[in-house]
Amino acid sequence: MTLTAGGDIERLVRLLSRLPGMGPRSARRAALALLTQPQARLVPLAHAMEAAARNVRTCSVCGTLDSHDPCAICADPQRDHGLVCVVETVGDLWALERAVIHRGVYQVLGGTLSALSGRGPDDLNTRSLFERVRSGEVREVILALGATVEGATTAHWLHERLAPTGVAVTRVGHGVPIGGSLDVLDDGTLAAALSARRPA
Amino acid sequence: MTLTAGGDIERLVRLLSRLPGMGPRSARRAALALLTQPQARLVPLAHAMEAAARNVRTCSVCGTLDSHDPCAICADPQRDHGLVCVVETVGDLWALERAVIHRGVYQVLGGTLSALSGRGPDDLNTRSLFERVRSGEVREVILALGATVEGATTAHWLHERLAPTGVAVTRVGHGVPIGGSLDVLDDGTLAAALSARRPA
Repeated sequence: MTLTAGGDIERLVRLLSRLPGMGPRSARRAALALLTQPQARLVPLAHAMEAAARNVRTCSVCGTLDSHDPCAICADPQRDHGLVCVVETVGDLWALERAVIHRGVYQVLGGTLSALSGRGPDDLNTRSLFERVRSGEVREVILALGATVEGATTAHWLHERLAPTGVAVTRVGHGVPIGGSLDVLDDGTLAAALSARRPA
Repeated sequence: MTLTAGGDIERLVRLLSRLPGMGPRSARRAALALLTQPQARLVPLAHAMEAAARNVRTCSVCGTLDSHDPCAICADPQRDHGLVCVVETVGDLWALERAVIHRGVYQVLGGTLSALSGRGPDDLNTRSLFERVRSGEVREVILALGATVEGATTAHWLHERLAPTGVAVTRVGHGVPIGGSLDVLDDGTLAAALSARRPA
């Protein structure tokens, strides 16, 4: 017999253990921390999850997640709506927003083309990107896709689709990460850094 | 501006990041995993947390957490109620239950005596232990406290308090963990293992 089989605690631990980065052990620790302070920790988190489940939706313009549709970025008149940064996931968008380096708007593809995983063009959220480009409001599309085979394939396909529209298509640079030392980098990154060399 | 400041997502990430073992990065990953599958993951977890907050309470007999009071262990007639294992935390009780090695019942102290942290005897959940011992239903008290200064102090204090009642008081053995090799063990454990030697 396990202590809480089928009980509230066992269910909480089981669901927590399915979170990325969590295992059975950390899920038990998290559950215990929540249960020993139910009013201060458990109830607020439950309410936050409920509110998120109720309110958060996919932005019909760019495809990110937000409590509003269009999202706060697409609805912001201060952002440059002529500059669209294409990313694979909402997590990538969050990373760029945290860095506060992109004043334009986004397009979240929701993944990459992948022959292996059977993801084709129809599985990517691109319709609203092409619509925005066709409408003439877009000046430049920045492809900020992962430096992977799938990311490169997707970038290539998007470039081909966008070229006839006359919009400027750029891609993010690849090379040595800032703060990184060369001897820990893989060959692919070193090659990209060398071929992307510029006058010092 | 941060993307979701004050929003539902930012609140969810912030509360998740306070869980033990979680940081801002893993909290964002967890929130994203939950938000991309709201019906399959977010809603069930929110409901599990609510149910736990509503139902889970401290057992008035042993001090563990359960949906029932007395808890499933204290209410189980199959368990040996004459054999009480004293542990520091609910997590310790869970560890023993997972190992399925204790057929008796428990007493969860909720901590240890600690001069440093200002925790005295009144801060420990011992009243129901002494009551059970006085009632004559307890045959043996096993002190399964941590092998720390605080654990040893607490064990010593409990032993002194329980000795006059005539109940048998034992403590768990200390030594080389099963599956462990000697060269990674600290001196204290090695000393305990040597002094706890038995005929081979």
